[in-house]
Amino acid sequence: MEVISTIAALRARLKEEGSIAFVPTMGNLHEGHLNLMRQAREHGRCVVASIFVNPLQFGPNEDFNRYPRNFERDCKIAESAGCDYLFHPSVDEMYPNDYNTEIMIKGISNKFEGAFRPVHFNGVATIVAKLFNATKPNYAVFGQKDYQQTLVVKQLTKDLLFDLKIIIAPTLREFDGLAMSSRNIYLSDKERDDALVLFKALNTATEAILNGERKRVTINAIMHNDLRKIPYIKIDYASSADANTLEEQDTFSPNQKIVLLIAVYLGKTRLIDNSIVTIVG
Amino acid sequence: MEVISTIAALRARLKEEGSIAFVPTMGNLHEGHLNLMRQAREHGRCVVASIFVNPLQFGPNEDFNRYPRNFERDCKIAESAGCDYLFHPSVDEMYPNDYNTEIMIKGISNKFEGAFRPVHFNGVATIVAKLFNATKPNYAVFGQKDYQQTLVVKQLTKDLLFDLKIIIAPTLREFDGLAMSSRNIYLSDKERDDALVLFKALNTATEAILNGERKRVTINAIMHNDLRKIPYIKIDYASSADANTLEEQDTFSPNQKIVLLIAVYLGKTRLIDNSIVTIVG
Repeated sequence: MEVISTIAALRARLKEEGSIAFVPTMGNLHEGHLNLMRQAREHGRCVVASIFVNPLQFGPNEDFNRYPRNFERDCKIAESAGCDYLFHPSVDEMYPNDYNTEIMIKGISNKFEGAFRPVHFNGVATIVAKLFNATKPNYAVFGQKDYQQTLVVKQLTKDLLFDLKIIIAPTLREFDGLAMSSRNIYLSDKERDDALVLFKALNTATEAILNGERKRVTINAIMHNDLRKIPYIKIDYASSADANTLEEQDTFSPNQKIVLLIAVYLGKTRLIDNSIVTIVG
Repeated sequence: MEVISTIAALRARLKEEGSIAFVPTMGNLHEGHLNLMRQAREHGRCVVASIFVNPLQFGPNEDFNRYPRNFERDCKIAESAGCDYLFHPSVDEMYPNDYNTEIMIKGISNKFEGAFRPVHFNGVATIVAKLFNATKPNYAVFGQKDYQQTLVVKQLTKDLLFDLKIIIAPTLREFDGLAMSSRNIYLSDKERDDALVLFKALNTATEAILNGERKRVTINAIMHNDLRKIPYIKIDYASSADANTLEEQDTFSPNQKIVLLIAVYLGKTRLIDNSIVTIVG
């Protein structure tokens, strides 16, 4: 595996490569990221991963500065996952002084995560477009853990005509069901135990849907009911929507694919999780 | 020359082409466009032009619907200029129903044209990014006539890391100095005569600068003075600025490259023109 820090060097190296599969990350790699790289390996002959904590997708009061960075460890992990090139640019390399461009994905960007993190998806769309143009991949792999992000990236790719295929890899979970996340290391032991409530709420609501529940308010109430069992939890949202459009209908329909979306604070740590349920018949 | 109307067909055709030079236009081609295509011919082995009147770059009260369209004539002209592929998509092909993405170039987009046409440069940046991704050119040729647009496109290309070179071709003029423009056909005979005042104002101001004038307000007043000789003219702006940043300094400096920018209405027709002057010593 080769580590590359400039766009020019990345381009020079990838020029002669055939089918490229790309995995953009913010580093502090865990098993979930490895799974993205394995998916990439299955699709492309050359696997490129990037590690870049993108300032544009963090709000002014968010955790950009304390976001966990562990580059040496990440290098070993990426290499072990079969990554061929690891792109690790500086902030100046990606956003030089005179940088002035921003991409907006309207509609789906404004709900859920977008409502609580107003600049977030503009930042995501912008860095993804830049990384696509720097890497020119045939495939790009994203995790379902950031569900709304996968929709934003798909819309970006379709709308701006990036000539590549988006692969969504399933969320990996710890032994007890907690979704793997670089932010889990922020959690105290007690918060780590209590964090299981997200998976529990998703499962209770999924079961209700599979048992015939179709009303959005009821489905959402089921999730809130579970989450509130942790007295100190702060719920940003726990909601259900059409999995493709994020439309929040009053009543879901037969054969509809629904996404359950949760974002909460446990202490100072913000956690998100999601699950997709297809109503049968 | 082959006419192509879908993105899929364009991609299929260009897949095997080597060095591609691309000329995006809104059609109603004139000698200025031909010059862009000739420049493209000099740079690329394959010349692709596009004809697309981009609704996103027109404001609600602008001339999108009456913008001159003359596709059959354009085909002959493009072919005679050595164009290999003419991409002519429908509005639905470029902006399907669920389209939701917009690119903003901050800073330079808000002045001059941007101040009078608020959505204009977002629309330009967005369609140019789409056409770049559809065509994947090595070179893209734009006319200096739309000076601020050339700055926006350069910023877009640099910021989003499009891997291509922007070529700016000089403004072509009619025998008497009027800048060639698809919108000139809107002019009545009298307006066509009076339109010469733009070129005249640029020349008077250029001469003043070459004779030592350095104060922005004075340079601008010189242009306004010429323009106001046409009693019914409506001046949107007639101003001077740093040619790279569009910064409007009070006093220009030795060796600075200045752009003179004019936008006026003659009757219902809006005309723009510009000229670049380098202060020597």
